Amino acid sequence: MQKFYVVGIGPGSPEQLTPQAREALAQADIIAGYGTYVKLVQPLFPEKEYLQTGMTGEVKRCQLALAQAQAGRTVAMISSGDAGVYGMAGLVLQLAAEICPEVEVVPVPGITAASSGAALLGAPLMHDFAVISLSDRLTPWEKIARRLKAAAEADFCLVLYNPRSHGRPELLARARQLIMEHKEGEQVGQTPVGIVKNIGRSGEQTIVTTLADLDEELVDMFSTVFIGNSQTYIQETPAGPKIVTPRGYLPQDNGEQA
Amino acid sequence: MQKFYVVGIGPGSPEQLTPQAREALAQADIIAGYGTYVKLVQPLFPEKEYLQTGMTGEVKRCQLALAQAQAGRTVAMISSGDAGVYGMAGLVLQLAAEICPEVEVVPVPGITAASSGAALLGAPLMHDFAVISLSDRLTPWEKIARRLKAAAEADFCLVLYNPRSHGRPELLARARQLIMEHKEGEQVGQTPVGIVKNIGRSGEQTIVTTLADLDEELVDMFSTVFIGNSQTYIQETPAGPKIVTPRGYLPQDNGEQA
Repeated sequence: MQKFYVVGIGPGSPEQLTPQAREALAQADIIAGYGTYVKLVQPLFPEKEYLQTGMTGEVKRCQLALAQAQAGRTVAMISSGDAGVYGMAGLVLQLAAEICPEVEVVPVPGITAASSGAALLGAPLMHDFAVISLSDRLTPWEKIARRLKAAAEADFCLVLYNPRSHGRPELLARARQLIMEHKEGEQVGQTPVGIVKNIGRSGEQTIVTTLADLDEELVDMFSTVFIGNSQTYIQETPAGPKIVTPRGYLPQDNGEQA
Repeated sequence: MQKFYVVGIGPGSPEQLTPQAREALAQADIIAGYGTYVKLVQPLFPEKEYLQTGMTGEVKRCQLALAQAQAGRTVAMISSGDAGVYGMAGLVLQLAAEICPEVEVVPVPGITAASSGAALLGAPLMHDFAVISLSDRLTPWEKIARRLKAAAEADFCLVLYNPRSHGRPELLARARQLIMEHKEGEQVGQTPVGIVKNIGRSGEQTIVTTLADLDEELVDMFSTVFIGNSQTYIQETPAGPKIVTPRGYLPQDNGEQA
């Protein structure tokens, strides 16, 4: 059966590309993707044919790539992180049903920013968490706001993708405001916040702060933002401050932090 | 600086172990972990020294491993999936602060079941999602229930870890009931549900069903359960039924499904 791989390449470094993902790229006659991500894999497979499109040309990009599959070529469409988390796996499946239902779409998972960013910050996601994109390009803000409120009220840890997309710095400020209003407790402002930029690429940076002190200006479109639950705390370590969300293994996890 | 790696090995297959994780294991003098996971990496590094403990001996396992680090040895503690998602990264950081604050704890991310399972099911997590563990061993059921309700009301996609832990089959049934009561709409019973078992290991299996038809008896402790949002649908493909959550790229994503 003709295969169309939708490959999560992880944050960007070849060190975080799984052997399964690398093998899918090796099998492909043509690798399709947004220009920035194509540049990350091109050094690994310089001989391959590439199909590049702009950031917001997702439908066109998938249609062009599926036309290649229809013509009998093995295609790998890449997404950074995991193709199944705000990546291209869904759109490719949807369009394949119309364009070439005989082609088998094979999603290949990658390390998503929730995982790669959390590792750099310490262990912020050791308990239940919600992943929310702040981009209102495809989703009405009312829906995003409803999810932010619900997650804050139920004391989830939070991971915010696209915290400052399309030049809209106010989205993160509005999200922060909603979260602070809907979290319980007197210490809400002290909730740890981690910002991770350019994970696995040049310019990789982590910032550990709090909801009260969060400076939205430090967040850009290549950032992911982590917000703790009511038990999350900041721990000083030889490698700098880390964010830890306890899971309940230790007696002090279930009372006050020392 | 003395390093202690906390390594997410992914679902189990070497094909989903990142080069970064493999390198951390290669650097280690001793590899520590729960027996089932140790068996997954032992074939890759048969010469290494291993420190195995039982499933619920997490604190003891971390203390023993940290004592090795304190004695000057490089340790890699493994978790399946991502060590930062219901794995050992948090507990190691917490205990290191007491036992050997001079050791640098280095979390190495892995492919968590949300990603690896979603890929096998198609694209169920293309929009905002919540990750919840149903295990009430470390978390009061009231807290779990509160999060299930909030996630259902705010129309998150859901990923349930430990859906049937410690021989408690009723937890998933209770979760299903709560979710059905708190999701909006008349078609709640038709919400797609995916079950993935033994990801990346022998016995790998996927089941695509709905909230109304979910048979809890099919779910075991090695399963992960995915539940769609109000727009998620089941798509027939040459590789069987797949679960797709649209993100809003296509006109029909924002109206009724055809």
